[in-house]
Amino acid sequence: MDESFSAEVDSFFDSAPPLPDGENISKRLADFIARNQRSSEGKPIRVVCVSSGGTTVPLEQRCVRYIDNFSSGHRGATSTEYFIKAGYAVIFLHRRGTYQPYCRYLPEDSFLDFFEVTEDSTIRVCEEHAKEVNQAIRNYRSAVERGQLLKIPFTSIFEYLQVLRIVAGSMKSLESSAMFYLAAAVSDFYVPWESMAVHKIQSAGGPLDMRLAPVPKMLSLLRKEWAPMAFCISFKLETDSEILLKKADMALRKYGMHVVVANELSTRKKEVIVVTEGSKVKLRIKDSNEEVEKKLVDLLVDHHSNYIDLENKNLVI
Amino acid sequence: MDESFSAEVDSFFDSAPPLPDGENISKRLADFIARNQRSSEGKPIRVVCVSSGGTTVPLEQRCVRYIDNFSSGHRGATSTEYFIKAGYAVIFLHRRGTYQPYCRYLPEDSFLDFFEVTEDSTIRVCEEHAKEVNQAIRNYRSAVERGQLLKIPFTSIFEYLQVLRIVAGSMKSLESSAMFYLAAAVSDFYVPWESMAVHKIQSAGGPLDMRLAPVPKMLSLLRKEWAPMAFCISFKLETDSEILLKKADMALRKYGMHVVVANELSTRKKEVIVVTEGSKVKLRIKDSNEEVEKKLVDLLVDHHSNYIDLENKNLVI
Repeated sequence: MDESFSAEVDSFFDSAPPLPDGENISKRLADFIARNQRSSEGKPIRVVCVSSGGTTVPLEQRCVRYIDNFSSGHRGATSTEYFIKAGYAVIFLHRRGTYQPYCRYLPEDSFLDFFEVTEDSTIRVCEEHAKEVNQAIRNYRSAVERGQLLKIPFTSIFEYLQVLRIVAGSMKSLESSAMFYLAAAVSDFYVPWESMAVHKIQSAGGPLDMRLAPVPKMLSLLRKEWAPMAFCISFKLETDSEILLKKADMALRKYGMHVVVANELSTRKKEVIVVTEGSKVKLRIKDSNEEVEKKLVDLLVDHHSNYIDLENKNLVI
Repeated sequence: MDESFSAEVDSFFDSAPPLPDGENISKRLADFIARNQRSSEGKPIRVVCVSSGGTTVPLEQRCVRYIDNFSSGHRGATSTEYFIKAGYAVIFLHRRGTYQPYCRYLPEDSFLDFFEVTEDSTIRVCEEHAKEVNQAIRNYRSAVERGQLLKIPFTSIFEYLQVLRIVAGSMKSLESSAMFYLAAAVSDFYVPWESMAVHKIQSAGGPLDMRLAPVPKMLSLLRKEWAPMAFCISFKLETDSEILLKKADMALRKYGMHVVVANELSTRKKEVIVVTEGSKVKLRIKDSNEEVEKKLVDLLVDHHSNYIDLENKNLVI
């Protein structure tokens, strides 16, 4: 790691406001990893950290205004369900308030239109929704009871990167059984805490000029230091298809990702391109009954299996 | 209205992306106002537009990044319930995804933990939550059935101000029976649409410099042109108590508000100061069983009654 990058990283973490519940997160992670270290047959269970939703960049220390990245968290929540189905234990690192696994079918807005009060004054879910809610609750309960799902929330870019570092540290010991599926929309720019206005920025007169510093690219650190043996997948979202694949290739090389999933904003629910060293595979759904995350997770689980096999062979040699 | 302000306003609206469902909103509003023009006893029903939640400022036309204002929408949602209780018809102009009236007691995060599957495989709300959900559903259904609640969502600053203008236009005919309770956290700065990057801003190298233009203060327009007879309440939120009352006074005079509600970020759930021409009244809850919005709405309803009486007397004279 070159010196100026290392200084940038230190300056980012040093300037970040302290994580309020860091110890509690570490404890929950340690328990979760311990429970998922080995299956009942003694085989190592695979653990994936799915990051999901956008990070905020506070513009004021007592935060009223912030920059946000658009992300509903739908990709992350959906993928979490498929990873659990594939037998993975999932650390769901999500932006507060975004989509949650097994809740995707629930109505977003009119929560109350969803219930009815029966004649004997008990409340129940309206019949038209009952089937999907029933299934969702069963799947959710089953994942929680088997200890396959751990949810950790974040809001700001500071919180996200601090928690990701803790998660990576706790997954390091899993070696190649660990996977990172980094679907969160992470800010590229931030306002260093110490240079931030303490109070709400006043709008007294004229335009507002802001200078944002680039967020150090922590993906390199994740690969090189935090969890060097883990299988790493990052996402590249662009609105301009012309530069999308070029940027995906660059992320693969520059940050040492094993896979980069390239997606364009307007078509992201129908189509993704899975970019690896030397291959580009387009996954596309046929109709709206399919979910592109199913195809994506299936393919990534295969890639992860190959990676584990290769690592094990290398160990034997 | 001076010429440069008028030019600013024109430039804001001219540059805004067109509202996708403007016609539909106008129609729903016209129906709602017509239904609430007179009560069954022939008296004019009071209508309040409650704005709630924060507006976003897109930084790119195909929006990935935006500036957001922190606001859960709790104040607006709570106040809406009290206005309905006081007999008002409420146009609830809210940021998508923020708190909704009658949903405040529902768990935010673990929606699924809220239900249980009974022995005969039906789903019901867990007993510990049943009572409050029951009450919430009844109140909500009753407000909707009596036609007392109209919900209109927004996201960006462009959408918010376009919709507010339409709402004000449709409430103009209600004269002094109309009230605006503007609790939304509206951006002070924006990026004019035509000067906005079309695609996602690239993070190639170095810091990002941004220049934001001030949003024209539409409160003056609301008072002078959009709905000059309506009773207008705006909110002032600051993190710095030193400047809070000064800024509230200024808003009262500069924009011709009838009431400004001053609140400080850290104490806003416990205490507000109701600022009018010549009076400052502090409202404070005694314990966590009370809601400051109840006191606030009670006081504002009184102010509104006095205002209507005064306007009626002026008409007679």
